[in-house]
Amino acid sequence: MKKILIANRGEIALRIMRSAKEMGIATVAVYSEADRTALHVQYADEAFCIGPAASNQSYLVGEKIIEACKRSGADAVHPGYGFLSENAAFARQVVAAGITFIGPTPEAMEIMGNKLSAKAAALKYDIPMVPGTEEAITDVEEAKQRAVEVGFPILIKAAAGGGGKGMRIVNNVEDFTEQMGLAVSEATSAFGDGSVFIERYVSSPRHIEIQVLGDTHGNIVHLFERECSIQRRHQKVVEEAPSSVLTPEIRERMGKCAVDVARSVNYVGAGTVEFILDENLDFFFLEMNTRLQVEHPVTEMITGLDLVKEQIKIARGASLTYKQADLKINGHAIELRVYAEDPENNFLPDIGTLATYKTPKGSGVRVDDGFEQGMDIPIYYDPMIAKLITFGATRAEAIDRMVRAIAEYEITGIQTTLSFGRFVMLHDAFRSGHFDTHFVGKYYKPGIDKSEDETEAMIAALVAINKLNNKGGSDLQPQSGSTNNWRQNRIKY
Amino acid sequence: MKKILIANRGEIALRIMRSAKEMGIATVAVYSEADRTALHVQYADEAFCIGPAASNQSYLVGEKIIEACKRSGADAVHPGYGFLSENAAFARQVVAAGITFIGPTPEAMEIMGNKLSAKAAALKYDIPMVPGTEEAITDVEEAKQRAVEVGFPILIKAAAGGGGKGMRIVNNVEDFTEQMGLAVSEATSAFGDGSVFIERYVSSPRHIEIQVLGDTHGNIVHLFERECSIQRRHQKVVEEAPSSVLTPEIRERMGKCAVDVARSVNYVGAGTVEFILDENLDFFFLEMNTRLQVEHPVTEMITGLDLVKEQIKIARGASLTYKQADLKINGHAIELRVYAEDPENNFLPDIGTLATYKTPKGSGVRVDDGFEQGMDIPIYYDPMIAKLITFGATRAEAIDRMVRAIAEYEITGIQTTLSFGRFVMLHDAFRSGHFDTHFVGKYYKPGIDKSEDETEAMIAALVAINKLNNKGGSDLQPQSGSTNNWRQNRIKY
Repeated sequence: MKKILIANRGEIALRIMRSAKEMGIATVAVYSEADRTALHVQYADEAFCIGPAASNQSYLVGEKIIEACKRSGADAVHPGYGFLSENAAFARQVVAAGITFIGPTPEAMEIMGNKLSAKAAALKYDIPMVPGTEEAITDVEEAKQRAVEVGFPILIKAAAGGGGKGMRIVNNVEDFTEQMGLAVSEATSAFGDGSVFIERYVSSPRHIEIQVLGDTHGNIVHLFERECSIQRRHQKVVEEAPSSVLTPEIRERMGKCAVDVARSVNYVGAGTVEFILDENLDFFFLEMNTRLQVEHPVTEMITGLDLVKEQIKIARGASLTYKQADLKINGHAIELRVYAEDPENNFLPDIGTLATYKTPKGSGVRVDDGFEQGMDIPIYYDPMIAKLITFGATRAEAIDRMVRAIAEYEITGIQTTLSFGRFVMLHDAFRSGHFDTHFVGKYYKPGIDKSEDETEAMIAALVAINKLNNKGGSDLQPQSGSTNNWRQNRIKY
Repeated sequence: MKKILIANRGEIALRIMRSAKEMGIATVAVYSEADRTALHVQYADEAFCIGPAASNQSYLVGEKIIEACKRSGADAVHPGYGFLSENAAFARQVVAAGITFIGPTPEAMEIMGNKLSAKAAALKYDIPMVPGTEEAITDVEEAKQRAVEVGFPILIKAAAGGGGKGMRIVNNVEDFTEQMGLAVSEATSAFGDGSVFIERYVSSPRHIEIQVLGDTHGNIVHLFERECSIQRRHQKVVEEAPSSVLTPEIRERMGKCAVDVARSVNYVGAGTVEFILDENLDFFFLEMNTRLQVEHPVTEMITGLDLVKEQIKIARGASLTYKQADLKINGHAIELRVYAEDPENNFLPDIGTLATYKTPKGSGVRVDDGFEQGMDIPIYYDPMIAKLITFGATRAEAIDRMVRAIAEYEITGIQTTLSFGRFVMLHDAFRSGHFDTHFVGKYYKPGIDKSEDETEAMIAALVAINKLNNKGGSDLQPQSGSTNNWRQNRIKY
């Protein structure tokens, strides 16, 4: 493998190229017309334009990417995440063209890409699933009987459903018949199908996922968990490794389950097995993601492994150079996704130009980004600007470092999730580890962000100190008030 | 401890402030008139001008610093490195003013600040010293006898000497009388004193130092070694941890010696015990530095400890929270000092404006700097712009990452040691670990830097590829040749 084409853009394209460079492998970028001046295009050894801005005319067109491989002589493709990364048909095209696809087999992608076949594969092993009905039910008495077996609280879900329609939470058996009636009639009127599924309702769910790596020789290990419970609109914003809540015993069981899920499809490469964890620390398999994930850096920080290099080595046919027992967790890492979004306006995308863009530095701070000062965040793609990752000897240190790094991060011209990140880091629920995926809905009321009040109090105090200092007759000249703030940005973060 | 005044400037001032911020401690900067707009002044919560540019009118004036403490209400001083950091009188003044000095006791500083008293203190323990005469000798036969005892090769050094005058290397006993005669007559004519010392000549010395930490309760541990053998003008440019040459057994013995040296002066805080290592892996005590050192980050990377936080905790009276057996080396770290110097012109300082200044990012890369684009490197102080630190699971990965990071680092307007760093990283002697403090003199001939040739060949190949690509009739548009370089800087690094 001498030249890798990265079928992606933004931070992940740069991140992959960095590892390739460190391995002495040449890199090829592809880009849409909207990304002509993008950093990943500048960073690559070669770059090919593959069409107009719209993804479905550029980054999602497998044929154009394979043509760019052929023209550049690239002998491998790294798909990154999103776009074609979990497209089995694309992986097949790549392989058919004699090019290495850096990822799992198309078969594994297909099985895990479908919830039913994924569940069927996982059932070869003893993998806990959310308790519930396997098939849709219409009969009320039968449904009630199943609900009792599953145990309350339960969730009634329209079989044909979506968007919360025909969905009911039932806390005890007495309410069941009435709620089932409502669910069925809602489902019937919405979808013309009144059949429902019954499943355990997890009222305080945490999202925990396990990173796995498999080689082409049948070796599979897990790299411990990431917790991704801080979400907005069901999308992750803050991730960390390890989780603040897992015990070593649960970590080991969860890791073993993840390896089994991977083994059920003879998994090759880097993948992630997602679980839901309930308030009793029982966990249930959700799905497997057959790609490198956005949040993979936190795993890199605590294991010392470069996951992209591992992917490349595996794709070259190398065996894993470590066994499960060799892997240890070292320290704690947190990632904040810095999105071009306005957290005070329901996290709506806030596209524009990075008028100021300066990243934090120093010990334990990593920034994976794809932009620099003066660049535009294009409207066509995911509005992520960067991933801000901090590492510390302990979780408390990683959190404190994140607060410091957020304060150093200077972005103007665009609203970002940095202020939300600060809110999370300072919140007792997060700091104490007592939170779940409802964190944002439960706690985040941007209008009354306490941290703003704190900041104003701090500024008032500083002004008072300055006044005091300016009274002295010494030749020591205190700096004027304005520079007592980190470039006057302290108010913002 | 609620507010720390940092009696320093540049990268180390920022680095200390970052740790203080993460601990919730307020920071006070001091600055000379030349540093009015410096980054450390912007970063601090408060900043005090303490005089004109010249160090001896500002950063070296203890009284002004203590006055700034009083006016700001700072209850502690961190001296950084250089300036007043090893000035026992200043430490005494600070303590007398009721302010905490973040560092060792003045007594320990004084003993270790003098080579003779340091040696005397160390002799309380079984610390290996470079074999040689304790006192000056004038008699040739006596000197020859001592030389035979010490073992050849030996070094004859004028007792009153300096600058290499009256210094002779003697490889065997037959040459001794003649060389001694020459040394004595040279010393007599140069210094009016013909007496000499005899000591073992280490022909292939490596500079290895051990980081130690002591608390106020008598606990002292070492944090393993740093190797600093890559030097120009007897000053370190590249440092790494661990050393590529130490065995676990030698590491343990050296670590124990370092702890003993520290114990000989009841050392409190962070300090470094320096050793010379010869070609037989025998080591000898050189001196102890009673401050945080420039190269401390490589130790932070491999231990996961934040040394500034440890210093602060120790100064607060806390006990170390780990014992020697708890400390483990994790991975490998390398530091390159990025100086405003022209390596092709004998490393002469090259002061000016940072016309372009963009730092590398990504996994395993840390930049500790004190400047940003558009700033001037003042002529008054040490010309260090930044410390570029890379971390990897292995030494090879840390080296490859350093090569990648150097290539990403963009500095124009000033010559820097980045190109020299690249030379070192690509050199077989460094990569294989077979080098000593003579590396620069032996290998570095900037006029015929092989890497330049390699780069030109690579560029020629890329141009050929581009020409080839441009012939196609496809809608895939290869990027123009110029962007195939990382901003056209590839030629430089």
